[in-house]
Amino acid sequence: MADDKKLTTRAENFSDWYNELVLRAELADYSPVKGSMVIRPNGYGIWERMQRALDDMFKATGHENAYFPLFIPQSFLSKEAQHVEGFAPETAVVTHGGGKELEEPLVVRPTSETIIYHMFAKWTQSYRDLPILINQWANVVRWEMRTRLFLRTLEFLWQEGHTAHATHDEAEEEARKMLGVYRSFMEGWIAMPVVTGQKTESEKFAGALRTYSCEAMMQDNKALQAGTSHNLGQNFAKAFELQFQDQNGDMAFAWNTSWGVSTRMIGGLVMTHSDDNGLVTPPKLAPIEVVIVPVYKSDEERARVVEASHRVKQELTEWTGRGATDRLRVRVDDRDGIKPGAKYYEWEMRGVPLRLEIGPKDLEKQSVFSARRDTRAKAALPMAGLPETVAKLLEQIQADLLAAAKARREANSYRSVKSYDEFKQIIEGPGGFIYAGWNGDPAIEAKVKEETKATIRCIPDAEFRTPGGQARCLITGEPAKHEVVWAKAY
Amino acid sequence: MADDKKLTTRAENFSDWYNELVLRAELADYSPVKGSMVIRPNGYGIWERMQRALDDMFKATGHENAYFPLFIPQSFLSKEAQHVEGFAPETAVVTHGGGKELEEPLVVRPTSETIIYHMFAKWTQSYRDLPILINQWANVVRWEMRTRLFLRTLEFLWQEGHTAHATHDEAEEEARKMLGVYRSFMEGWIAMPVVTGQKTESEKFAGALRTYSCEAMMQDNKALQAGTSHNLGQNFAKAFELQFQDQNGDMAFAWNTSWGVSTRMIGGLVMTHSDDNGLVTPPKLAPIEVVIVPVYKSDEERARVVEASHRVKQELTEWTGRGATDRLRVRVDDRDGIKPGAKYYEWEMRGVPLRLEIGPKDLEKQSVFSARRDTRAKAALPMAGLPETVAKLLEQIQADLLAAAKARREANSYRSVKSYDEFKQIIEGPGGFIYAGWNGDPAIEAKVKEETKATIRCIPDAEFRTPGGQARCLITGEPAKHEVVWAKAY
Repeated sequence: MADDKKLTTRAENFSDWYNELVLRAELADYSPVKGSMVIRPNGYGIWERMQRALDDMFKATGHENAYFPLFIPQSFLSKEAQHVEGFAPETAVVTHGGGKELEEPLVVRPTSETIIYHMFAKWTQSYRDLPILINQWANVVRWEMRTRLFLRTLEFLWQEGHTAHATHDEAEEEARKMLGVYRSFMEGWIAMPVVTGQKTESEKFAGALRTYSCEAMMQDNKALQAGTSHNLGQNFAKAFELQFQDQNGDMAFAWNTSWGVSTRMIGGLVMTHSDDNGLVTPPKLAPIEVVIVPVYKSDEERARVVEASHRVKQELTEWTGRGATDRLRVRVDDRDGIKPGAKYYEWEMRGVPLRLEIGPKDLEKQSVFSARRDTRAKAALPMAGLPETVAKLLEQIQADLLAAAKARREANSYRSVKSYDEFKQIIEGPGGFIYAGWNGDPAIEAKVKEETKATIRCIPDAEFRTPGGQARCLITGEPAKHEVVWAKAY
Repeated sequence: MADDKKLTTRAENFSDWYNELVLRAELADYSPVKGSMVIRPNGYGIWERMQRALDDMFKATGHENAYFPLFIPQSFLSKEAQHVEGFAPETAVVTHGGGKELEEPLVVRPTSETIIYHMFAKWTQSYRDLPILINQWANVVRWEMRTRLFLRTLEFLWQEGHTAHATHDEAEEEARKMLGVYRSFMEGWIAMPVVTGQKTESEKFAGALRTYSCEAMMQDNKALQAGTSHNLGQNFAKAFELQFQDQNGDMAFAWNTSWGVSTRMIGGLVMTHSDDNGLVTPPKLAPIEVVIVPVYKSDEERARVVEASHRVKQELTEWTGRGATDRLRVRVDDRDGIKPGAKYYEWEMRGVPLRLEIGPKDLEKQSVFSARRDTRAKAALPMAGLPETVAKLLEQIQADLLAAAKARREANSYRSVKSYDEFKQIIEGPGGFIYAGWNGDPAIEAKVKEETKATIRCIPDAEFRTPGGQARCLITGEPAKHEVVWAKAY
C-alpha cells in the first residue's frame, strides 16, 4: 500500500500535487469511463461523515428526505427557458431501453428541479400543503469535457434541497437560511472559511431569480465555489403549474428554492489543508482520528507494546466525554514486518490527524509520544487522563486548521487595488481574492473574464465588505454599483 | 391529506389494495417516466432506518463503503457470458453525451459486478491485498415492462456488497455470512420471517456459481425474494483478470461474492403486516413510533390537553432507557380544526405503531389512552412510568408482528402434498409454500413453471426441511435429489 515515491510538491505543480495526492491517499481513482470516478473507502468515509453532519442539520431545520427518479423526460427540461439553455448542452441521454428505441429520449438528471416541481404540483392544493421542505441525496450527471477528481466529474454525488413556499419572502428566507447552514458546515466541519454572497446575473443558476454561494480559497489562491442556494422565484412554479389556493381562495403560484453541495467539497478539503506529505483531514471529518503505532525491536517488546496499544485504544474508544454517540475513532496499526517509519509515512499520506507512538520507553514513563498531522508538532502525553488530552488536542487541531486557512485567505485578499493593471498582475501572479468596485455592467464583467480569466465570485455579504466600501468601478472609474470579489476559480 | 375513501380490501383484490395503500400512506408515487417511482418522505423514512441498521451490520462484519460509476462501458457487460445474457436485455443505454453521439454506448448499471471487479483487478497485487470487503449504496436501472411500486421498478435503490477472497471456502463463508445478516435484519427489523436456501441452476444470478436467497411469504401467500447472496466463484475474476500472487509466489484468480437488498423490502414490509385500514410498520423501522392526539371539546380543554401532550412527548423523547442513541420517536398531532377521528384514520393509514389519546378525563385519572396499530387493542396506561410502559409495548408489538407473520407462513406451508394434482389445486387456490421432493431435472422445473406459474423458490437450508425428508420427486415419482420449496412469486 505504501509507496516511497514522494509527491510532486505544491510549489512545483499544484495540479499534479492534487491529482497524485487523491490517488496516493486512496481517496478516489479513475474509472474506465472517461470523466467518471471511483470513490474509494478512504474518500467515501469522509463523504459519509459529511452526509451525516449535513443531514442532521437539514433535519434540524425541518427538512425531510425523499427520492426522485434518475431519468427525466427530455421535454421537461425545455419547460423553463433559461434552465434548458444552461443544462441541455451537458446532458447524457438515454435513447434505448430494454432493447428498444424510446419514443421520447430520457435525460439523466443534471439536477432535479423539473421533475421535483412537477411532483410538488401534483401534491399541492392549498396553502395548508405549504411549505414543502424536501432534500434528496443522489447522483447527478453533467457531461464535462475537462474533468478533475472530485472537482469536476461526469457523475458526482450531492444533495439537492427543494422547497415550495407561499410567499417570496419565505422563499428568500429559506435560501438564505440554507446558505447559512452550508457556511456553518464548511467552517465548523471542513475548517474551510468561506465568503458568502450573491452571484451576478451572468453567474447565477440557470432558472433562478437569485443565486447565493459559498466561495472558499484554495492553497493556490484560486476560488472554489463550494455550495450554492437559489431563490428560484416563481420561474419553475409557472413552468410546472405549481399552484395553490391561498387563504382568500385565490389561486397563486408557489415560490421555490433549491440548494446543493456535492463530493466537490472533498476536493475543497484536500486543497485547503493538505501539504507535500499528503492529506490533512480536519478531525471532525476524519474516519480515523487517531492512529496508534506500536514501536518495538524484539518479539518480547512487541508483545508488550502491541498489548499496550490495544489497551490505549480501548481506553480512548470507551471514553464518552464527547457524548455517547461521538466516540474517539482510533485504529491500531500492529501490522508486523512493516517498519514504524513506513507506517508513519502511510498514515500521514492518508491524513490521520493524530499519531500516537508507543514504545518500551514510553511504557516505562507511563506516557505516549504524539505527532500532529497538521503542524507535525510532537510531544509526550501522560497516560493518565489520555482521552481528555487527546480530545482536547483534536479540538485544537480542528480550530487551528480553520484559523490557518482564514489567515491564508486574508493574506491573499486584496482590498485596495488601484488599477486594472495592478489587478491583472495579481491575477496572473500570486492570485487571490480581489475586492473591487464594479459598475454593474455585464459587459465589463465579460471583458475582464475574457482578458484575465478571473470571474466575479460574488457580491459579498455585508460582513465581508471592505470598511468604507469601494466608491469607483476598478475597470471604468465610474461610480461602483457593488463591491465584488474577483478571482480565478475551479 | 386525509381521504375518507376506504381502501379496497385485501380479500377483494390484493393487488389493488397494495397499490392504493402505497399511494394513500404516501410511501411512494408514480413518476412521469413510466416504471419509475418517487419515494415520498413517509417511505424514504423507512428506507433510511433500513439503511442505517444494515449499514451498521455491514460495518460490524468488516465492510467499508465506496462508490462506483453509474455508467458502464457496454463492452464490459459482455465479458462474462452468462452475465450479459441475463442483463443485456433489460439495460438502459446512453448513446449521446454533451450533445454528441458516443463512440461506445454506456449502459446504466443494472448491477455493478463488471465495473467493480475491473477496479479490484487494478488494486490487487498480492494475497496481502485480500480480502477486499466493499459495499455500495446506489441506484440501479433494469428495464422492466410490468412494474409495481417498490416491488419492480425501472430504477430502484439498493446496496450491493462486493468482495474478493483468496480461496473458494472464504468466499463461500462470506456469501453465507451475508445471507445470515440479511435474515437477521429481515426477522429482527422488518419482522418478516424468511426461508433461506440455495437457488436452482435456472434461478441463480447470471454469472454466479451459487445463489442463496431469503424468501418471505406475503399475505396473498405468494413468495417475495427479499435478498440474495452470491458465491461468484472465479467467473468474474477470470473475465476481468482479477489475479493475485499467492503465498507461494504463484498467480491465482480471486474468488468473489456479491449480495444485495433493495427498496423492494419496503414492499415486503407492506405486504407482510398491513391491513385493510392501511400500513402497519414494525416499530423498529417506523420513523414515528408513537403519535399523541390531544382530544378536547372547548378552547379551555384544548389548552390543557395540548400542553399535556407536549409534556408527555418530552418525557418520552428524553427517556434514555433504550440507550442514548435510540430515543423514542414521538409526534404530537395538535392540528386544530381536524377531528380526532380523522387524525386516528390518517395515522392508521400511515402505520404509526402506537397511538396515545389524551383528553381531560385522562388528565384527571393521570393516565393516557392507548391504541395499538397492529391488533387495534386499546388500554389505559398510567402516566407514572409511561416511557418504560410504551417502550415495552413497542417491543411487544415488534415481537407479535414477527410471531403473527411466522404463524401465517406456517399455516400456509404444505409439507405432505401427495400428487401433482393436489399441488396444482394449492397453487391455483389458496397459494402458499409447497415443500416437495424434486428429481433435480431442470426440464421438470420448467414444465411445472410453465403449467402452474409456480417456481422453485429455493432448496431450503437444513432447519427449514421437512423432518424425515421427501423421498420421491412429487412430479415424476423418481427418487428425490432435493427437497425444494415451490410457490408463485413476485
